[in-house]
Amino acid sequence: MSNIQDKSESVIFPKGVKVSNDYFIGAAFLEMLVPHDNIFNCPIVNVTFEPRARNNWHKHPGGQILLVTGGKGYYQEEGKHVQELHEGDVVKILPDAKHWHGATPDSWFTHIAINTNVQAGAVEWLEPVTDEEYNNLK
Amino acid sequence: MSNIQDKSESVIFPKGVKVSNDYFIGAAFLEMLVPHDNIFNCPIVNVTFEPRARNNWHKHPGGQILLVTGGKGYYQEEGKHVQELHEGDVVKILPDAKHWHGATPDSWFTHIAINTNVQAGAVEWLEPVTDEEYNNLK
Repeated sequence: MSNIQDKSESVIFPKGVKVSNDYFIGAAFLEMLVPHDNIFNCPIVNVTFEPRARNNWHKHPGGQILLVTGGKGYYQEEGKHVQELHEGDVVKILPDAKHWHGATPDSWFTHIAINTNVQAGAVEWLEPVTDEEYNNLK
Repeated sequence: MSNIQDKSESVIFPKGVKVSNDYFIGAAFLEMLVPHDNIFNCPIVNVTFEPRARNNWHKHPGGQILLVTGGKGYYQEEGKHVQELHEGDVVKILPDAKHWHGATPDSWFTHIAINTNVQAGAVEWLEPVTDEEYNNLK
């Protein structure tokens, strides 16, 4: 549909720096667009995943909204089928819904993550999405 | 830098419907990406302005964040110089800051508007940005 810049360099917003925590498998990159503060209460991050990269299962006590800007990704909530995501998709992640997101095997993936109601508390990181799970998504 | 789709058809997210209220001059288009609710408390709108289109001066009691996805626009706060906006720019509008935004004379302009702390109250619309003001921006 569009012929925007190469997804490995992110889309519109900067690619940022490689994630260095233990809650991701594969390489992902974060650029803080709006930092956490007590004025807006709405930290916003541009996230870019290399093919197959994904975050661990996790929960946001206040919820999160994803705006997909490019590439091809996955979103899955516990007990539900995986959803394939594309440019222009919007994902509303309810408070405390256990979920993960990341890139498909054949594409980079970029989304803006908007953290809502952050007064409710910080993200709770859980177990990784193993290669066995990732290779057998339903 | 990028060669994304024609700005008159918006960028990544749908162009939506023409604004039909009295708080804009020129044609602007809105697509609600996330509606107002009591779960996320974070309505998100994709806004596309035709060249010269702009909204009236206004204030957000809870603040607003703009993520610029394409075209060329203006942002001005009361008593300050106008700022020219481009793809990838982020604007943090403090609660109750009197301001307006819109397209430059020679370009369409698209941004995502993220409304923060909406529990604080609804937008307060004020006087229009007259042609005389718009033609003599500093």
